[in-house]
Amino acid sequence: MKQIEGGVTAPKGFKAAVAAAGIKYQGRCDMAMLTCEVPCECAGTFTSNVVKAACVQWDQKLVYSGKPMQAVVINSGIANACTGQEGWNACEATAKAVEEALGIPYDTVAVASTGVIGMQLPVEKLVGGVQSMSTDLSASGEAATAASRAIMTTDTVNKEIAVCFEVGGKTVTLGGMSKGSGMIHPNMCTMLGFLTTDLAIDKALMQEALGEVVKDTFNMITVDGDTSTNDTLLLMADGLAGNEQISEKNKDYDAFKEALFYVCRYLARRMASDGEGATKLFEAKVVNARSKEDARTLSRAIVASNLSKAAIYGCDANFGRFLCAMGYSGAQFDQNDVELFFESSEGRLQVFDRGTPLSFDEEVAAKLLAAKEVTIFVDMHEGDAEATAWGCDLTYDYVKINADYRS
Amino acid sequence: MKQIEGGVTAPKGFKAAVAAAGIKYQGRCDMAMLTCEVPCECAGTFTSNVVKAACVQWDQKLVYSGKPMQAVVINSGIANACTGQEGWNACEATAKAVEEALGIPYDTVAVASTGVIGMQLPVEKLVGGVQSMSTDLSASGEAATAASRAIMTTDTVNKEIAVCFEVGGKTVTLGGMSKGSGMIHPNMCTMLGFLTTDLAIDKALMQEALGEVVKDTFNMITVDGDTSTNDTLLLMADGLAGNEQISEKNKDYDAFKEALFYVCRYLARRMASDGEGATKLFEAKVVNARSKEDARTLSRAIVASNLSKAAIYGCDANFGRFLCAMGYSGAQFDQNDVELFFESSEGRLQVFDRGTPLSFDEEVAAKLLAAKEVTIFVDMHEGDAEATAWGCDLTYDYVKINADYRS
Repeated sequence: MKQIEGGVTAPKGFKAAVAAAGIKYQGRCDMAMLTCEVPCECAGTFTSNVVKAACVQWDQKLVYSGKPMQAVVINSGIANACTGQEGWNACEATAKAVEEALGIPYDTVAVASTGVIGMQLPVEKLVGGVQSMSTDLSASGEAATAASRAIMTTDTVNKEIAVCFEVGGKTVTLGGMSKGSGMIHPNMCTMLGFLTTDLAIDKALMQEALGEVVKDTFNMITVDGDTSTNDTLLLMADGLAGNEQISEKNKDYDAFKEALFYVCRYLARRMASDGEGATKLFEAKVVNARSKEDARTLSRAIVASNLSKAAIYGCDANFGRFLCAMGYSGAQFDQNDVELFFESSEGRLQVFDRGTPLSFDEEVAAKLLAAKEVTIFVDMHEGDAEATAWGCDLTYDYVKINADYRS
Repeated sequence: MKQIEGGVTAPKGFKAAVAAAGIKYQGRCDMAMLTCEVPCECAGTFTSNVVKAACVQWDQKLVYSGKPMQAVVINSGIANACTGQEGWNACEATAKAVEEALGIPYDTVAVASTGVIGMQLPVEKLVGGVQSMSTDLSASGEAATAASRAIMTTDTVNKEIAVCFEVGGKTVTLGGMSKGSGMIHPNMCTMLGFLTTDLAIDKALMQEALGEVVKDTFNMITVDGDTSTNDTLLLMADGLAGNEQISEKNKDYDAFKEALFYVCRYLARRMASDGEGATKLFEAKVVNARSKEDARTLSRAIVASNLSKAAIYGCDANFGRFLCAMGYSGAQFDQNDVELFFESSEGRLQVFDRGTPLSFDEEVAAKLLAAKEVTIFVDMHEGDAEATAWGCDLTYDYVKINADYRS
């Protein structure tokens, strides 16, 4: 497997376009459309929030129906959540506009929205955006990059990636893009993510691989503990790579899953480090925990704690906050088993040894914590399970961004 | 029942003293001692955090042993958490210093600490503080107030209260003090709270009443979602009011429980509104929920959400964030049943009606949200249970306080 240039249009058969529809933002693209020249097998994971946006409900119906998917229309600015019947109607109108413009059946068109909750979408602007994008579809890398920018809200950088790998002598490509900066605490998958591949694979196997990979990638990031109403991750596979369809868990399946993990981990880490107001990536790696679930719970609790996040922002080696977060996470452990280290490009420093705080040089610790990527490494010494979670620091700018009027 | 002047020394038999022991802070009192002239029945609730401070372990042993309690020594600055055997030894040395100075058996002395985790207490300073306080004990209101100040860390105001009520023709007094401003998300009780009464009551009944009252008071506040390693609430009853001992759930028990609820609610609200960096009290009241547990879960989720808290700080009527928080809380409900209102001294405004966002005057909403106490009122229309939770807004100052070196 190797990483290549490009994003969602890198696999054979996919095209993208963008539009400035003026949904909420002015003077920037706020819609993206992704289409495939043939119907795709699709898999998806969605928010666990009880309050699901209209577009999530729309996509769940599509994915769970077993029908193919051939296009996705995405808008930023308004989330189409808490919008009742009118919100559902907006999804339908958008999908039907795609059918009218491109002949793609409306019940194979997914929709996704991100932005303010509790506001209705301007349907005419959406439809106008679809019409404009329909004449502008391109398989170029520029189109993919433009799409990854159009779906941004408070994001400061776009997130896209592509990799290729071999399956039965054929080169398969997997591309992806995602957005997410605030309201990030995925509990099923994350904000908006779109993955494309030209692999031929059985739909059920693809869904299973996606569900497993999400657990250790998108579900392991947090920015603010708020699980969105709109979290959606879609994977479309058009089979145009020409490989023999993967229909069992063989080495080809493993190669695909490895590529999927690589892409999802890349996008997830990039989302965490671009958390609202963030100045650095904050990683927690827990090893030798009693179970995989415990390792996930412990590592997530560390990066989710406001107090831990503020300490990371202040380069303060206040390690007690990490132990405190582990303690209320819900996982059981004995503090007398635990070792805790700080790690970054500046080095490695142990600060807690099986129940006892260690003396350390505060200046060395502060320098270590000043790096752009900081890891808290925790050895539980109670089992053999491990997990890694990603978050970011808590800064003045997080408050500024979210106290600002209707951000 | 009526509220009266005074705090923990208001009930008969209790005395307090403070000392500036220089544990971490300089130039301010950082120790308090509370004693009773006779041994007291005691009840207590403690943090659910797996990582329990040495002092919590010490007090749990004492409370669960069934022995009486006659004194409490409290320090601020260092939490004595994650300190291993040396931390436990510090508790014992403190209690033994009380026995030496006052003749109160060391195994009837509780200890409590609040401050930095993972740092050892300077035992000689603690012992010196106890010696100094032993000659300075007073039943005055000033002594109680001084004690409520000495236990503060990042608190900006002290928290104390006293009430009196009638039991069998006798006047009973109940006093209390607490501290807490950050690392506040009690999951058993809250930071440090100390309640005193001259009521005569059966120990088991007292523990039951405390456990129930805590659920709807201290356990319903949150500042930052971080459940401390040190949460401790102790209630001491010396029986000096002269009432016939309460030994069943009669009207006297009800009068006591009402007074206990009043005192705990007062202290809890005061802690929430004094949350680190807070500019206002943020209350969520949920009515007509399917169950009491659901009502608690929903109301707590609203005030715990970083995004909700930032919106409250910015006076932004971004009600979708509250619905989003309710949606990921874990409680099940249908958004099409829900009504949502903003309430404050400036009025009342409905913003969401059973699945549909309402149009409202943004200026009216912003004015309403600019009040010092803001309530989100939610009618679930799905049952008859209700609950109220308290928190505060998320501000630049919260970040500043917690990013600052070893706050």
